[in-house]
Amino acid sequence: MSEIQPIGFVKSPYTETSQIPKGCGASHEAEGVLEIEPEFEEGLTDIEGFSHLFVIWVFHKVEGYSLLGTPPTDNRPHGVFATRSPFRPSPIGLTVVELIRRDGSRLHVRGVDMVDGTPILDIKPYLSSIPQEKLRRGWLAEAEERRSK
Amino acid sequence: MSEIQPIGFVKSPYTETSQIPKGCGASHEAEGVLEIEPEFEEGLTDIEGFSHLFVIWVFHKVEGYSLLGTPPTDNRPHGVFATRSPFRPSPIGLTVVELIRRDGSRLHVRGVDMVDGTPILDIKPYLSSIPQEKLRRGWLAEAEERRSK
Repeated sequence: MSEIQPIGFVKSPYTETSQIPKGCGASHEAEGVLEIEPEFEEGLTDIEGFSHLFVIWVFHKVEGYSLLGTPPTDNRPHGVFATRSPFRPSPIGLTVVELIRRDGSRLHVRGVDMVDGTPILDIKPYLSSIPQEKLRRGWLAEAEERRSK
Repeated sequence: MSEIQPIGFVKSPYTETSQIPKGCGASHEAEGVLEIEPEFEEGLTDIEGFSHLFVIWVFHKVEGYSLLGTPPTDNRPHGVFATRSPFRPSPIGLTVVELIRRDGSRLHVRGVDMVDGTPILDIKPYLSSIPQEKLRRGWLAEAEERRSK
C-alpha cells in the first residue's frame, strides 16, 4: 500500500462535529482555511486560477464503520457507499469548496463541512460537472419528494 | 491516523497505465467493474438509484511525487494540486463514473481511467454539480484557448 499522508489541516469554524449543518437543505457557506504544510507549497502553483477544488480528507474523529445507516435526510437505512455517512470502511471525506484566495500555503475557501483540525490528504482542481439533467439521485430524490408532500 | 483500507479493486480494460487516454479531449468511455469485497456488499444497498459515483482510489503503481509538473494538456509546469498528476504526496485518484448496473458486489461502470487491479478506497454518490457557468478552470482553460488559435 502506498503511503497516504496528510498534506495539511483544515482551519474550520466548527470545533465539534455536532455544529456542522447536516441533511437536505444544509447550507455549506462556512469559510475556512486549508493550511497546507509549507514543504508542499510549491504544489499549489497556479491553483488560484480555479474557482472550485476537491478536498479529500480524513474523518479523523470517527472510529469504526457501519455498512447500513439512516442518514439525516431520510427515515430509511441505506448502504454506506450510497450516502455521505462518516462511518465508512475507509474514513475518507470529499468536499467541493470554492476557492476565495490563496495566501502562500494557505487556501481561503468557502463551503467547509469539516471539523477544525481535519487532516487533508489531497487537493484537486474541479474541472467539469455532470450536467444536472443527466443526474439520477436515487433515495435522496425520493426522500426529498416524500418530504415535499 | 485512521486506517485507510481498500474496499475492492478495479477491473479495467487497461493493463498498463500507458494505455489510458490522457489530456484534453481524452474520452473516458471505457467500461469496467468495481469489484467490491463481498464483506462490504451490504454497504452498496440502494446505490443503483444513482447515475454517477465518485470513486476514490490509489495510484498504486506510482512511487514518489513531484510538486511541479507539466501535464499532457499544456507545455508549461503547474503545481501538482492544480493538476490530476499521479505523482502526488498522497497518491490518491478521484474519478467520476457512470453506474451502468449492479451485480451483487460488482458495479459495472462507464468512464474508468484506472489501470486493472487499482485498489478502491471509497465510493460515494454524486449528488450535485457546480453549474458550468460558475466554474473557472485556470491554466487548463488558458491552454485550451492557446491550442485553439
